[in-house]
Amino acid sequence: MPEQGYEVSPTDGGVLASAGFAAAGVAAGIKRRPGAVDVCIIDAGRPAPAAAVFTLNTMAAPPVEVSREAVADGMLRAWVVNAGNANACTGEVGLADAGTMVETAASALGCEPSEIGVASTGVIGVPLPIDRVCSGVRAAAGALGSSAEHGEAAARAIMTTDTFVKQASFSVRVDGAVYTVGGMAKGSGMIEPNMATMLAFLTTDAPLTTEACRMLLATVADRTFNRITVDGDSSTNDTCALMASGAAGGGPIGPDHPHLPAIEAVLMRTCDALARMIVRDGEGATKLVEVTVRGARSEGDAVAAAREIANSPLFKTALFGRDANWGRVAMALGNSGAAIDPAKVEIVFAGITTCKDGTAVEFSEEEAAEALAADEVGVTVDLHLGTAQATVLTCDLTYEYVRINGEYRT
Amino acid sequence: MPEQGYEVSPTDGGVLASAGFAAAGVAAGIKRRPGAVDVCIIDAGRPAPAAAVFTLNTMAAPPVEVSREAVADGMLRAWVVNAGNANACTGEVGLADAGTMVETAASALGCEPSEIGVASTGVIGVPLPIDRVCSGVRAAAGALGSSAEHGEAAARAIMTTDTFVKQASFSVRVDGAVYTVGGMAKGSGMIEPNMATMLAFLTTDAPLTTEACRMLLATVADRTFNRITVDGDSSTNDTCALMASGAAGGGPIGPDHPHLPAIEAVLMRTCDALARMIVRDGEGATKLVEVTVRGARSEGDAVAAAREIANSPLFKTALFGRDANWGRVAMALGNSGAAIDPAKVEIVFAGITTCKDGTAVEFSEEEAAEALAADEVGVTVDLHLGTAQATVLTCDLTYEYVRINGEYRT
Repeated sequence: MPEQGYEVSPTDGGVLASAGFAAAGVAAGIKRRPGAVDVCIIDAGRPAPAAAVFTLNTMAAPPVEVSREAVADGMLRAWVVNAGNANACTGEVGLADAGTMVETAASALGCEPSEIGVASTGVIGVPLPIDRVCSGVRAAAGALGSSAEHGEAAARAIMTTDTFVKQASFSVRVDGAVYTVGGMAKGSGMIEPNMATMLAFLTTDAPLTTEACRMLLATVADRTFNRITVDGDSSTNDTCALMASGAAGGGPIGPDHPHLPAIEAVLMRTCDALARMIVRDGEGATKLVEVTVRGARSEGDAVAAAREIANSPLFKTALFGRDANWGRVAMALGNSGAAIDPAKVEIVFAGITTCKDGTAVEFSEEEAAEALAADEVGVTVDLHLGTAQATVLTCDLTYEYVRINGEYRT
Repeated sequence: MPEQGYEVSPTDGGVLASAGFAAAGVAAGIKRRPGAVDVCIIDAGRPAPAAAVFTLNTMAAPPVEVSREAVADGMLRAWVVNAGNANACTGEVGLADAGTMVETAASALGCEPSEIGVASTGVIGVPLPIDRVCSGVRAAAGALGSSAEHGEAAARAIMTTDTFVKQASFSVRVDGAVYTVGGMAKGSGMIEPNMATMLAFLTTDAPLTTEACRMLLATVADRTFNRITVDGDSSTNDTCALMASGAAGGGPIGPDHPHLPAIEAVLMRTCDALARMIVRDGEGATKLVEVTVRGARSEGDAVAAAREIANSPLFKTALFGRDANWGRVAMALGNSGAAIDPAKVEIVFAGITTCKDGTAVEFSEEEAAEALAADEVGVTVDLHLGTAQATVLTCDLTYEYVRINGEYRT
């Protein structure tokens, strides 16, 4: 990741690693498993500079609509989130329910509803069990705290079919100041019985302005969460949000502040860590695959090519089979719309060159199969046309993916 | 299909159902299985009006380059095709080999190389065994005939992992004239060990002009072969070609001739039949899925939405699981870029309404699972925004797909 020489180091605490925040996760009976935590709040204690990016899916769920409006003025005090039910494809009832969640949280925290962001993930097309959700919201507001346990409970409360809790936090030191970014996320595992959602909540103690929050989140999300793919589908509820408490002290940090690149670096590192966890926890995945396209005419070309490869079911299935099938990479490349000179293409699987100058290179398929058995593999394409590059993370496509997503609902 | 009242009826003979053509398929030792036919010629006996559409993949294979040039003047005498080796990603050698195939065929048939189209399908990145290919081409030229067996041998020679021979032919009667269209195709089954290719060769005895050939093929391919998807990838070698012998008699039929719509109808029917065979033979598929989007603002919107749904691995896996998972349809719809009013969306699985006005409708999941057990199922989305519609054919995503495409090459 582009840390540009900043001293970024891991720290503990996830979303609560940043001073100035409290959180709680409680069990409200929305998930099927009795006692599973499924409602959480992340609270900055007072209105804080904030930014959020949302799904581009035109079937965006009601909580996304409500949050878009709440974050429009650049200040939020808290996020309230439930798992187990996505409140998506729920029409007017869903919009009213998202509003009720927000009002309940605002009343419990003693703030305005316009200061609350809301997110939901889980089954779609089923109205929220709103009474249980509201009891949960009140319970979470009463249980807020700043310990690691509080942060973990919040991170656990947003999980659906995720198989592990996803938290990350890093600090950076710059000119004697120390800034921390913390985060939690859930992956695009399918929830029973419906749909994938990616949620990520990020906090920082840096005294960022709203403009700085927006700029950093847009840049960083585009290079991390927007460069992972499990099955190429983006959900109705995807939400990625950042709040800045300013608890690290110092004057406001706007877009032109000399400390901003350092904070971008630490945010990038945190989001990259969370994005990798999401891919690694992709449904049925046996390996994380890092597809890098370099030597492209433009970054747009590099991203388009890497994404087309990373989304190709033929490529993903070949990786499951430990097959350095560069023909499938070449095919996806040719479908990507990126500028390509077929006679210059070079394709490398896990360090083994399989194609150079657009044609086959002798290699040992046994060696390749061995190299591709690793649980993290890189596939690199060099277009030899320019200097731009991009990396997209994906996972393999396995029997288990078919099993998880093909199971009868009944 | 839009037959617009024309009397279209099935006939026998596949690509040789149209008078004026001869064909042959011979075994040249390119495929691994000993004795498998793998080289064929389809010969119009003299230069005939012709058109072809090719892959848009920028890694287009040498035979595609050579054929694009040959067909540019609108006349071809014959196509020469091999399976077992795609002559793709083979650079200068590949281009020379494609030229050699063409020259060998021209010399054997006694015509100009510029009158020959060439296509290859099979393993990529490996140079053609050009001596064996040329022996095959000469043998095929010497074995040409017009019987059903000749047509079937040609259709068999282009197969790779296809599990059945794909032939179709139909006739239409209009104003006392009878026109026949015949065709053969191979599907997008992965070949061992590399890549999918769709090939389709169509013949007609109608006295079409070159302009009429081009117009009809563009329209019909766009509504048939371009509306099927197995895994969303298009290959380096896709080729779809039409030749018109004029053997049905009568004056030239140009773009404005009153018989043209009837000929379009019979070509559409033939291509639709071949396209359905390709999907039904999709790797590991257990069912053919017809995704129809109607009530769209424009045909472009309808196609984009239907294609996004048909390509969604989550949707395709749900169908394998007989799961009327309309949430995945809604999600794909929202990702398609088509104009949508979420509050108007209606989703019907195999006759069972699962979503109306953008929200859930009660339905029996048992009944739905039963209906989805059929080997041909329809999923219809009504956007209730306009009058445009489109249908895209796909298949389900199964364990067998993963097995076929994930097998170790070694």
